[in-house]
Amino acid sequence: MNLQELETPALVVDRSRMEANVFRMRKRMNELGVMLRPHVKTAKCLEAALACTGGKPAPITVSTLAEAEFFAARGFTDILYAVGLAPAKVAHVLDLHRRGIDLTVITDNVEMARLGGERARAAGIKLPLLVEIDSDGHRAGVRADDPLLIEVGRAAVQSGCELRGVMTHAGASYDCRSVGAIRAMAEQERARTVGAAERLRAAGLPAPVVSVGSTPTATYAERLDGVTEVRAGVFVFFDLVMAGISVCRTDDIALSVLASVTGHQREKGWVLVDAGWMAMSRDRGTAKQPVDQGYGLACTLDGKPLDGVIVSDIHQEHGILSHRSGDPKRMPDLPIGTLLRILPNHACATAAQFGEYHVVRGGSEIEARWRRLD
Amino acid sequence: MNLQELETPALVVDRSRMEANVFRMRKRMNELGVMLRPHVKTAKCLEAALACTGGKPAPITVSTLAEAEFFAARGFTDILYAVGLAPAKVAHVLDLHRRGIDLTVITDNVEMARLGGERARAAGIKLPLLVEIDSDGHRAGVRADDPLLIEVGRAAVQSGCELRGVMTHAGASYDCRSVGAIRAMAEQERARTVGAAERLRAAGLPAPVVSVGSTPTATYAERLDGVTEVRAGVFVFFDLVMAGISVCRTDDIALSVLASVTGHQREKGWVLVDAGWMAMSRDRGTAKQPVDQGYGLACTLDGKPLDGVIVSDIHQEHGILSHRSGDPKRMPDLPIGTLLRILPNHACATAAQFGEYHVVRGGSEIEARWRRLD
Repeated sequence: MNLQELETPALVVDRSRMEANVFRMRKRMNELGVMLRPHVKTAKCLEAALACTGGKPAPITVSTLAEAEFFAARGFTDILYAVGLAPAKVAHVLDLHRRGIDLTVITDNVEMARLGGERARAAGIKLPLLVEIDSDGHRAGVRADDPLLIEVGRAAVQSGCELRGVMTHAGASYDCRSVGAIRAMAEQERARTVGAAERLRAAGLPAPVVSVGSTPTATYAERLDGVTEVRAGVFVFFDLVMAGISVCRTDDIALSVLASVTGHQREKGWVLVDAGWMAMSRDRGTAKQPVDQGYGLACTLDGKPLDGVIVSDIHQEHGILSHRSGDPKRMPDLPIGTLLRILPNHACATAAQFGEYHVVRGGSEIEARWRRLD
Repeated sequence: MNLQELETPALVVDRSRMEANVFRMRKRMNELGVMLRPHVKTAKCLEAALACTGGKPAPITVSTLAEAEFFAARGFTDILYAVGLAPAKVAHVLDLHRRGIDLTVITDNVEMARLGGERARAAGIKLPLLVEIDSDGHRAGVRADDPLLIEVGRAAVQSGCELRGVMTHAGASYDCRSVGAIRAMAEQERARTVGAAERLRAAGLPAPVVSVGSTPTATYAERLDGVTEVRAGVFVFFDLVMAGISVCRTDDIALSVLASVTGHQREKGWVLVDAGWMAMSRDRGTAKQPVDQGYGLACTLDGKPLDGVIVSDIHQEHGILSHRSGDPKRMPDLPIGTLLRILPNHACATAAQFGEYHVVRGGSEIEARWRRLD
């Protein structure tokens, strides 16, 4: 079957690109002597996860317990749930443990460490826990130099958790504007998180695991001394946000949305397509970058970018393509029914709008369909 | 079961509010003497659709063929597919016709009218079609005064379509900043679309159906002479965008996302919750309104807004709550595990992030779960 036979919109993965992306990241981690614990939240797909783990189940990172269930049911037993635990999820976490899943949770506060540990202990389970470190001020976590770090670690141990160490996500790396800035962010992420582990150890608390990660910092880190594992997710597909900060090239982006041309507003230079935000998502991650890609960059059916043709506005089931310059004369002729492939700003957000991937290898021949966790 | 027993995030519908919203819209349409053809794209849910159609299947509007299938399988036979038809979908449309579904399609161009009509004729089907009218310049459609209108209508008839008339969606009404402006937009929508139907008729072409609609114009239209049906969708739940343009009150919003507090960054006045964009969507529809609600407005578990507490930033599985003023001292104390209900900017986008609704009636007791088309 060919992409030309699909009902649009549909989600497409170019397997050649995906495999090249994975190869490079695995090679880097090997060279840096650190385990890759891929974040499966981007693809939420067995085949993509196995590509990242060398074909067999291995340690992974998830962002929801639904992902944990999906991968537990497919043979993955070592899972880091890398979003701050909530009381409402403890029972489910314990249930996964009862079924033999080594699920590590994270928190940045004493209350949750205590509550999690105590409920687990009451169930006869030693809950594995990492303390979340705020290495860049962008979201959750306790700062490495905050006395709270030791308090959280101590509360975890005292309440019966298995304190495994520390983790961070340097999400601020997405806002870096140069490779030099990403390198500096990677070193900050490493140094602060290793420092946090050393402070826990100095306080007599265990911290065997030092987990860091983001695709930008994983791509450009120069050293990872003291780090035991790296989590990265979006590298499997890449996207326009990553291309915009030189973490990949546009030609590395493995994910696209197949769309049909449904109409024109020729005076305005608009081409209407059937990929709205239900397909692309509302993510505007390139809005603050030097090159704003709107809601996505249009390519031909075989994946070649149409120079400057972006999704400039979007509705639930409609996308409006126009030339970046706004000049109607610079729009190519795209007759009704033309099939395009639109590269996403943010692979995680766009993939989340679909239930399956149509897999091609370079061209437009579909070699497989991969299920995605809804 | 109570909302307090759910794993967060979860989608909640307040049925009392929903039923009141539906009652008001149905009453308005009755008074204006026009059929309501509810747009089911907001809820994508049998129970919500039946609430809008008086308990029995009746004419509806859909935005995808997947919705058409979902509702066809549940007894709905008169369906308007209100997004410009693409060649890639004609085979599926014809298949629905073969199964007895009276599915009307729309287009704004000669190529699609011709191709649709011819393929249908080859299959022995007379394809019902409306010409899409651009009544406000915001998206697709042919202008009522454009000679192209007659060309599209003629191509439809000549190729064997059953030309049923015209339709428009005055989506620009979402950008109106006063009730007066919405009233004026409603009259513009009516006048231009009725005018288009009259032009078709004057050219000897049939146009029995004049279909208009958007929730704002449906709410404030003063007359609908010449209109035969109104499509509206978001009124069933309403949302912050609609409240921001006085189409509803905040207390009418029937949809919310149940979330747990998972952490704090007290110096910054941040409260972390487990409702990220996978729950709320990335919709920023209130960004340009006088009151920017961030990614949503936080309420207590029983649905009372927390004055000024909004989702100020968002990640895949994390939301960051802060006070609209930015002042950390104005944030209420929200301990770890506190359950909140967050009102969405855009009900269609937020609901689309979930597979089911938890239905309450005013309080927090769950009286039903309603499936949503994924």
